[in-house]
Amino acid sequence: MKVLTLVSGGMDSVTALYDAAQSHQIVGALGFDYGSKHNPRELPLGVWHANKLGIPHRTIRLPFINELFDSDLLRSGGPIPEGHYEEATMKQTVVPFRNGIMLAVAAGYAETIGAEAIVIAAHAGDHAIYPDCREGFMQAMGEAITQGTYAQLSLLRPFIAWNKARIVQRGVELKIDYARTWSCYKGGDRHCGVCGTCVERREAFQLASVKDPTDYAASPPLPLKP
Amino acid sequence: MKVLTLVSGGMDSVTALYDAAQSHQIVGALGFDYGSKHNPRELPLGVWHANKLGIPHRTIRLPFINELFDSDLLRSGGPIPEGHYEEATMKQTVVPFRNGIMLAVAAGYAETIGAEAIVIAAHAGDHAIYPDCREGFMQAMGEAITQGTYAQLSLLRPFIAWNKARIVQRGVELKIDYARTWSCYKGGDRHCGVCGTCVERREAFQLASVKDPTDYAASPPLPLKP
Repeated sequence: MKVLTLVSGGMDSVTALYDAAQSHQIVGALGFDYGSKHNPRELPLGVWHANKLGIPHRTIRLPFINELFDSDLLRSGGPIPEGHYEEATMKQTVVPFRNGIMLAVAAGYAETIGAEAIVIAAHAGDHAIYPDCREGFMQAMGEAITQGTYAQLSLLRPFIAWNKARIVQRGVELKIDYARTWSCYKGGDRHCGVCGTCVERREAFQLASVKDPTDYAASPPLPLKP
Repeated sequence: MKVLTLVSGGMDSVTALYDAAQSHQIVGALGFDYGSKHNPRELPLGVWHANKLGIPHRTIRLPFINELFDSDLLRSGGPIPEGHYEEATMKQTVVPFRNGIMLAVAAGYAETIGAEAIVIAAHAGDHAIYPDCREGFMQAMGEAITQGTYAQLSLLRPFIAWNKARIVQRGVELKIDYARTWSCYKGGDRHCGVCGTCVERREAFQLASVKDPTDYAASPPLPLKP
């Protein structure tokens, strides 16, 4: 199947790229610069992996998100909260309908380049605090994409039944260099090790019993919070 | 209800703006510059009507559509076909998943500004050649927007059971100056009168028995084609 794969440069989407390359013809990889603090760190890594696999990559800029939307994930927002994913603090990092926007743009681009499906690295551990990660959203958005395109594009979610540790194990099989992926929402020179997404990254390697190649500024014992 | 209204500057969306102002609190109006030939003609008219009603208006630029997508509606595409809407020629004017992209961006912005619903001027005469105008798409996209936002935003389509002539009649009730709306896909100094959307505009006034205030470059008898 000819697929377009969303690749942010994080662990999940990079793994989805290598995984899709095994079973599909990847006709394009797409990254989005929507003005998050960590976009400048993660996006070049997505490009690096696409280049390694010989897949044409495009980065689409969505500057209106940083300019108009409220979220601490954005450069226009406040500081990134630390600790485990929890509703009270991590909710500040929600970018309203981000997945909806990225998938809609991907659908238009996929139709343009003749893809038959879009691959997104949504997984079972995606957080319920993000409404546009929930199953109900993904089901409806997939249907909207199928109904709204001539090609009746499918939305593929190969990791939807997996947790992040299972994704890491798959990545090891695929010989992915996870040192060349980025998670930290703070977007500094090194992974901070203590923001929600760094904690989640560290947990994934620990649960997968895989050596974590990431250079963290701090690595307090896990879990930081229950 | 607090609503965000999509306003292109065409007849339908301008009417939807005035209509929504009667029954809702409009907290914002949103236009999109996606690089069509007629965006520069229509968008300022949408702004004009929003200003007249005292509604905050934003234009969001989506330059990647003109740069990456294939469509004769775009400045990067070929000439606009003339004649009645027909699959063979008008299909060239489809911008892949345009409604999906505009609605997704609107959902994120609506969530940001505290709206409870999005109003779109989709109507019964919207053309089956555009997959993202069909009922199945709109139903699924509405569900994706509800599921994917904290506010569980609704997608309102007040004109969905109306044809374009009924919209014109509603606009006359609302005292809308249709000379300050734009339809022609060619985006010239005057409405050409012979492209698919000009023909549709002329038909709507004729069927509504309303005097058409539009300055057309040509007005051959309707219908041009069956």
